[in-house]
Amino acid sequence: MKIAVIGLGTMGAPMARHLVAAGHDVTVHNRTREREAPLAELGAARAATPAEAAAGAEVVLCCVSDTPDVEAILLNGDTGVIATISPGALVIDCSTISPEGARRLAAAFAEHQVGFVDAPVSGGSEGAEKATLAIMCGGSEADFARALPVLDIIGGAITLVGPVGCGQIAKAVNQVVLAGVYQGVAEGIVLAHRAGADVEKVVAAIENGAARSWVLENRAPNMQADAYPLGFRVRLHRKDLGIALETARECGIPLPVTSYVATQEDGLIHGGHGDEDMSAIARTVRRNAGIADGPLKG
Amino acid sequence: MKIAVIGLGTMGAPMARHLVAAGHDVTVHNRTREREAPLAELGAARAATPAEAAAGAEVVLCCVSDTPDVEAILLNGDTGVIATISPGALVIDCSTISPEGARRLAAAFAEHQVGFVDAPVSGGSEGAEKATLAIMCGGSEADFARALPVLDIIGGAITLVGPVGCGQIAKAVNQVVLAGVYQGVAEGIVLAHRAGADVEKVVAAIENGAARSWVLENRAPNMQADAYPLGFRVRLHRKDLGIALETARECGIPLPVTSYVATQEDGLIHGGHGDEDMSAIARTVRRNAGIADGPLKG
Repeated sequence: MKIAVIGLGTMGAPMARHLVAAGHDVTVHNRTREREAPLAELGAARAATPAEAAAGAEVVLCCVSDTPDVEAILLNGDTGVIATISPGALVIDCSTISPEGARRLAAAFAEHQVGFVDAPVSGGSEGAEKATLAIMCGGSEADFARALPVLDIIGGAITLVGPVGCGQIAKAVNQVVLAGVYQGVAEGIVLAHRAGADVEKVVAAIENGAARSWVLENRAPNMQADAYPLGFRVRLHRKDLGIALETARECGIPLPVTSYVATQEDGLIHGGHGDEDMSAIARTVRRNAGIADGPLKG
Repeated sequence: MKIAVIGLGTMGAPMARHLVAAGHDVTVHNRTREREAPLAELGAARAATPAEAAAGAEVVLCCVSDTPDVEAILLNGDTGVIATISPGALVIDCSTISPEGARRLAAAFAEHQVGFVDAPVSGGSEGAEKATLAIMCGGSEADFARALPVLDIIGGAITLVGPVGCGQIAKAVNQVVLAGVYQGVAEGIVLAHRAGADVEKVVAAIENGAARSWVLENRAPNMQADAYPLGFRVRLHRKDLGIALETARECGIPLPVTSYVATQEDGLIHGGHGDEDMSAIARTVRRNAGIADGPLKG
């Protein structure tokens, strides 16, 4: 299949590699064009613009990090995908943007008889490398069926959540849930330490009960060590919470804990911790408790 | 072994049954004495006071719901366990009280050469019935070794967290973590609904990724159905958060999300929802969003 992949960052580059390895006819484009070189070595064609990449493609897969970037890549009248894409083709957007933004994009492509699936992912750089990403999809059943053979190559658990935008809703919900879980685990870890218990033993005592979570199992050690290797960047989670909170505002829902965590993350980013793993939210709880930097002892 | 069980509520009664079934010589006491009758039918002896129950016992197991009750049962000079318990015996307290309270009790018994293990449990009435409770223990290694054969009969995952009080610290941490997780899941579920997605499909799309938790898997359906069968009561979680927040205050740690959830639970209790499962925290998020009572549709 002729596939264009636009955006070769931490997520897009391994996606493109997997598609080349699966034998597809892949054309790549990245704004910083040097990033295309490793893909070209593997056999991908290079395109100077998104429009050039999309010309003749059956599927255009886009994976960048911000709504304005997605809109420029897809909708720019001269250099965007929409300038050249053929009727009957399909756009798959793996970027995380607002549900409303996804609906606007889908409507623009529908006018050209081009299908659209929003397909934000979860699972980080490791999931992209191993092709185990969870992919949350919004689109018609017909478009999803066309996207599935492509998504199967780059991801693991692939779910059609509902019509266009519903993939983005699921991603926003994912980030909202994570805000509460990370904050709860961080408050618990700091309490365990300050109250005088061995943090590791406390975690072992509770992690198989009702408090069980991926975060407690996989990120409590970061919080204890006061070291936050990636993982998933604070600044990207904060960006996604911005989308979730904007969506919540439009729907008239106060999300008090999500809002609180977002503002704490603003503080982390301002303090130079935006590129740490989001388990660094523990820094804010520690600091409010006057705990100096460094590993937590028992 | 001669064992006294004091407190035959939702948790204590099945504990006593399991110990009788395991062939131990069990004496029971409960403030509301009628509750002793079903145990007596199974072969347990009845005692009129905690002191009478503890006379000659090798192990005294106590399971009630509040610090003043525990102190009255154990330390009352005339009718309490301390009035009759033999040197060399062991007190196991399965109640949830403050870590500091546990240390005070242990010190009082140490003066009588009586060992003490704080052993709060998690897993609810179902865990007590099935003897699968998680039990978080604080005590010396020697006292824990003596408690273990008894705890093995009433629970599943049994952990020695550290010295006396550390079982209570682990329990407090468990409840703090749960506060964040429940609130995060509730905010996510309400956002999914309001933004127009099928809640069940959103949960399915995210529950195997980083947002994975026991609460999301097991309590999101309650939140969607707007029905909160037990489970674990809001009023008991609120009581436990009181212990956690008091401990945090003594240690000088602000726990902002725990504090927020505690005050929301106060509102639920005031509104007549204190005996619902704590997934009822979703009520507060729904109401702030102006969503009428009833199941959430897609």
